[in-house]
Amino acid sequence: MPTPSRIYTAALVVIGDEILSGRTHDKNIAQVASWLQIQGIRLKEVRVVADETDAIVEAVNTLRARNDYLFTTGGIGPTHDDITVDAISEALGVPAIVHPEARAILEEYYTTRGGLTEARLRMARTPEGASLIPNRYTGAPGIRAENIFIMAGVPSITAGMLDALTGTLEGGAPLLSETIGCWVGESEVAELLRETEKAHPTCQIGSYPFWGEGRTGANFVVRSTEADDLAACTRDLTTGLQALGRSAVFGGI
Amino acid sequence: MPTPSRIYTAALVVIGDEILSGRTHDKNIAQVASWLQIQGIRLKEVRVVADETDAIVEAVNTLRARNDYLFTTGGIGPTHDDITVDAISEALGVPAIVHPEARAILEEYYTTRGGLTEARLRMARTPEGASLIPNRYTGAPGIRAENIFIMAGVPSITAGMLDALTGTLEGGAPLLSETIGCWVGESEVAELLRETEKAHPTCQIGSYPFWGEGRTGANFVVRSTEADDLAACTRDLTTGLQALGRSAVFGGI
Repeated sequence: MPTPSRIYTAALVVIGDEILSGRTHDKNIAQVASWLQIQGIRLKEVRVVADETDAIVEAVNTLRARNDYLFTTGGIGPTHDDITVDAISEALGVPAIVHPEARAILEEYYTTRGGLTEARLRMARTPEGASLIPNRYTGAPGIRAENIFIMAGVPSITAGMLDALTGTLEGGAPLLSETIGCWVGESEVAELLRETEKAHPTCQIGSYPFWGEGRTGANFVVRSTEADDLAACTRDLTTGLQALGRSAVFGGI
Repeated sequence: MPTPSRIYTAALVVIGDEILSGRTHDKNIAQVASWLQIQGIRLKEVRVVADETDAIVEAVNTLRARNDYLFTTGGIGPTHDDITVDAISEALGVPAIVHPEARAILEEYYTTRGGLTEARLRMARTPEGASLIPNRYTGAPGIRAENIFIMAGVPSITAGMLDALTGTLEGGAPLLSETIGCWVGESEVAELLRETEKAHPTCQIGSYPFWGEGRTGANFVVRSTEADDLAACTRDLTTGLQALGRSAVFGGI
């Protein structure tokens, strides 16, 4: 049996009243979650907090201490409600400064766009000691401060920042998964799922019911960092479903 | 000036590995957020946690103590990975029991659907002392335990449970909002936003940039529980935008 890999973990803090009011449907949780999977980093927890310094500081300090990486989205624009940089500086106990490199990027970007005003200069501020994450869309960079990655709230800009970070973070073995779909009520196979998972200690089986075509079905997702165990567990589950007279649809329904 | 209303707050815990892995895009945050707005209850924080007892207990105990209401979604089905009821019972320090009324509902529901098996009976379990939230779709009820509302992970079922709860929770004055759209870079009006908000202490102004038709725009959302203040702040912001030579689109772009 291979040595279990070190598991790298991350958390995400989504900052924004607009998510908590229901006005904006968050897209960053799914985007960051999917990206982390590919990096071999496990997303352990997400918090959505208001545009309030205390709420941001609490979430950031709790989650950065117990994870390898912490990501934040939102609150890094030029307006008065963009307080993420100040709050994270406070959490880290360092001043917020104008980052010379960020200032140069923004000066260049706004040369043909009306100049670098005081409001725009806010987007060059970082916690002291931070480095930058490139933003090829609107100039204003993301920020890396210690193990914290500060990204935009607008999902397309965050996507570009994640792209810039791809392959740069140390991760463990990626969590592999296989999905089996079946037209069966999940309550009919609860015992099979439990027993199959127990027989394969490195695997977890998730069960996700749905309704369609007038009947009930479920997708079963088997996850493991160990490819051999994953294959064996998936095979046993398929065989078990067949023994109950059900056909398993590899890849899910 | 009217006496400021008592503000009622809620938090939401989304329970599920499938959200953290990026496999499933959460729809419950936006749904619960929008519903709470209508009830006059402010959503203060959301946490997404894994299907792990310790993670659920920590989130539930922290958030139920500092909010009027706590909602959870996910983990109340019949399979081994559905551990929400056990975890919340542990958080409350009470045993998980088979709720007689829930058992009767499920016996009835499964009469024509293969009977109430041991796996299905799991869905009749609640923390001791809890009451039920009707589920008109699949029988298995939601649960109210103290100030905690335990709901399904499947968004359509959660929608039905929220519907059943509509108007039953004490809330404060609903947070009202007006949206003004403008074809302007938000950095050009940052000072106007800051000054206008400062002049109207019961109002908050959020700024949400977007790009479209080859140019930059932003929606400004003014929020207040006081209708008169909201109208005055919105009017001042509109006038301010016009003074800068910009037209404001009432209702947003």
